[in-house]
Amino acid sequence: MPPLEFFRLQTRQEVLAFYPRFAPVGTEEVELAGAVGRVLAGPVSAPEAVPSFLRASMDGYAVRARDSFGASVGAPQYLEIKGEVAMGAVPDRGVGPGEALRVPTGAMLPAGADAVVMIEYAAQHPDQTLEVRRAVAPGENVLQPGEDVRAGEQLFAAGVRLRPQDIGLLAALGITRLTVPRRPRVAILSSGDEIVPIDQKPGPGQVRDANAYLAAAQVRAWGGLPLIKGIIADDFPALRAALAAALIEADLILISGGSSVGVRDLTLSAIRDLPGAVILVHGVAIRPGKPTILAAVGEDGAQPLLGLPGHPASAAVVMEVLGRPLLEHLAGLKPQAPWGRSVTAALSRNLAGASGREDYVRVRLRREGDTLWAEPVLGPSGLLSPLVKSDGLVMIPLGVEGLFKGEQVVVRLFG
Amino acid sequence: MPPLEFFRLQTRQEVLAFYPRFAPVGTEEVELAGAVGRVLAGPVSAPEAVPSFLRASMDGYAVRARDSFGASVGAPQYLEIKGEVAMGAVPDRGVGPGEALRVPTGAMLPAGADAVVMIEYAAQHPDQTLEVRRAVAPGENVLQPGEDVRAGEQLFAAGVRLRPQDIGLLAALGITRLTVPRRPRVAILSSGDEIVPIDQKPGPGQVRDANAYLAAAQVRAWGGLPLIKGIIADDFPALRAALAAALIEADLILISGGSSVGVRDLTLSAIRDLPGAVILVHGVAIRPGKPTILAAVGEDGAQPLLGLPGHPASAAVVMEVLGRPLLEHLAGLKPQAPWGRSVTAALSRNLAGASGREDYVRVRLRREGDTLWAEPVLGPSGLLSPLVKSDGLVMIPLGVEGLFKGEQVVVRLFG
Repeated sequence: MPPLEFFRLQTRQEVLAFYPRFAPVGTEEVELAGAVGRVLAGPVSAPEAVPSFLRASMDGYAVRARDSFGASVGAPQYLEIKGEVAMGAVPDRGVGPGEALRVPTGAMLPAGADAVVMIEYAAQHPDQTLEVRRAVAPGENVLQPGEDVRAGEQLFAAGVRLRPQDIGLLAALGITRLTVPRRPRVAILSSGDEIVPIDQKPGPGQVRDANAYLAAAQVRAWGGLPLIKGIIADDFPALRAALAAALIEADLILISGGSSVGVRDLTLSAIRDLPGAVILVHGVAIRPGKPTILAAVGEDGAQPLLGLPGHPASAAVVMEVLGRPLLEHLAGLKPQAPWGRSVTAALSRNLAGASGREDYVRVRLRREGDTLWAEPVLGPSGLLSPLVKSDGLVMIPLGVEGLFKGEQVVVRLFG
Repeated sequence: MPPLEFFRLQTRQEVLAFYPRFAPVGTEEVELAGAVGRVLAGPVSAPEAVPSFLRASMDGYAVRARDSFGASVGAPQYLEIKGEVAMGAVPDRGVGPGEALRVPTGAMLPAGADAVVMIEYAAQHPDQTLEVRRAVAPGENVLQPGEDVRAGEQLFAAGVRLRPQDIGLLAALGITRLTVPRRPRVAILSSGDEIVPIDQKPGPGQVRDANAYLAAAQVRAWGGLPLIKGIIADDFPALRAALAAALIEADLILISGGSSVGVRDLTLSAIRDLPGAVILVHGVAIRPGKPTILAAVGEDGAQPLLGLPGHPASAAVVMEVLGRPLLEHLAGLKPQAPWGRSVTAALSRNLAGASGREDYVRVRLRREGDTLWAEPVLGPSGLLSPLVKSDGLVMIPLGVEGLFKGEQVVVRLFG
């Protein structure tokens, strides 16, 4: 077995720059009703116009707008009501000069009509005379054909994550099935002779496999399909076999666990022994999270493998900072607007940075009057509870000695 | 049929004040691995301590800290290495004065040891002498029993939405199943004679049932189970029967569609005719969204029914502002921290408010240098595309005449 070697620590940007070499996952078809939150595999254009006809947007009377000109409460215009338009039907007659047809909201306008006088500004006399008390402009209280969407218009680019209103617009166009990237399948392997399954009572010196469940929940929350593969014994043949099996089944392999030098060494050897394996990153310049591995494995090195640090806080940070962008790349997601994924807050105390590494500090948010405070939640990275007590992470950039109390910082929110 | 009557328009706060009368849905058990994003039905306490034993948090040598006192590179202390501790096992001996045992990260500390000298600050001589080059304090590089979680400590309150790190902590404690509120079942009924199913080509004067799909996607995105019940004919017996069936099946009924006075009138009559029906709200002081209905229906009036306006933008806003809090109440979710659900931005133009109503304006966000702009996306509420082009809503409070260009506004993000 070769001795443990660290490459030069690589920066976050250097790690992210490797991702384009990994092929995004294939696509699948989904029903529109289940597509909220999914990502479009290709651009979508409108097959037809919406609305497809001149449509009343208020309850009232379809008229020729010019017939209403000059109308006011003091000097109304009088038109002749010739009937009404039924919902969902083609009007059985048009509107000529001096005529009106009663229309409900959403109905088709009769030929000749170009506006709707709202019911509030009209009175219907028993002799079917309509008293119009307010003039309407041509196009008033109607929706023009194509006003919502023009036929052929591009609605969405590839890689857009669909929100409820996007689903509504697609429904209006009769687009009932969509092609989306599959959810990336993420195999999660745990290593470490001290680790037992979560449904077992650990003996003295043993702990439960918490990291795998944390990583699986992150994968699920971010749109992937986690496959928890269980605990692999700390020996080369077992690890090598489990990795090879995961390679066939998954789009991305995560190895979780093993902080000790011996286990990391073994893991690295087993990865190196996979077909097509190239170790791209061994050690990243972030804190916590230094002992992270990124490898290209499988045919043409097309599949990524991420070796996570053993400490839970380190693994969680590496997943947030490096795992999530990798998953989003595999899932074909375009970089999305950052709104909602971070907030700006005032730091509640001085913080020293990590020399030579990008430093990720867990913080809790607290509002006090007009100020939103980011309070560092300290504690060794071997603990889970500081993560649980935190709302997000503050990053101290590489080369920055520290941040000062009161300084405005960007808090990257968990979730 | 009684004539259409509007109650006094009720404010958002008045509508929300009715929600406590509705019973939250029952509970179900879920596996921990699938519980991310779910809400805890009750508080959860730690059945045991984590870690359960004194644990090394670094690779190195377990020692009695006092034996290292005074050690430096120039004046090391010398200890005798008596063996090593295996991962996941109980050390087969303790550490006496002047002794050390090699330990990997995560291993149990031997009796007598109270600190770990990191491998970086020690040298192992061939005669099993350990040269300690830096003093360690008692407790250094170890995790104390209960340092992460004390036995019996309350970890989570009822109503907390579980994040990945929360799942990790529960896994560490061996809590493999959780009791959570069921996902509220939400029946979505569409009414309107002009409406056709989304997989049909609308004839002249007809439109597809987009609103139901928009509402269903909102329900799904917010943790409910949408049940799209299809299009109900605009007649009293059909509507009455469909509502009665939904009452049995669902926790919440949404009626979508029907903007015209006639349809709203009919809907109201059918609701009134349900067992236990009380109309609580008929008309809300928000724009868009005035013709909203809230009713208590079913036995003891325990089930809520929300009648949505027919215009898609109005329905979407009412769902955001009134539907989402109702769904969250039914699902037992405690009010969550607002981080991530809104951002502050500068308004790009003057905006007039709606007299006597809380006004919700769709906005698109755009970053320009250091400024995040909220740009109103105008358009009639009968259109879907302005919603699709928007990132969120700006609210102009009741009684405020308008907002000025450049003013800092809170943008409530869609999603």
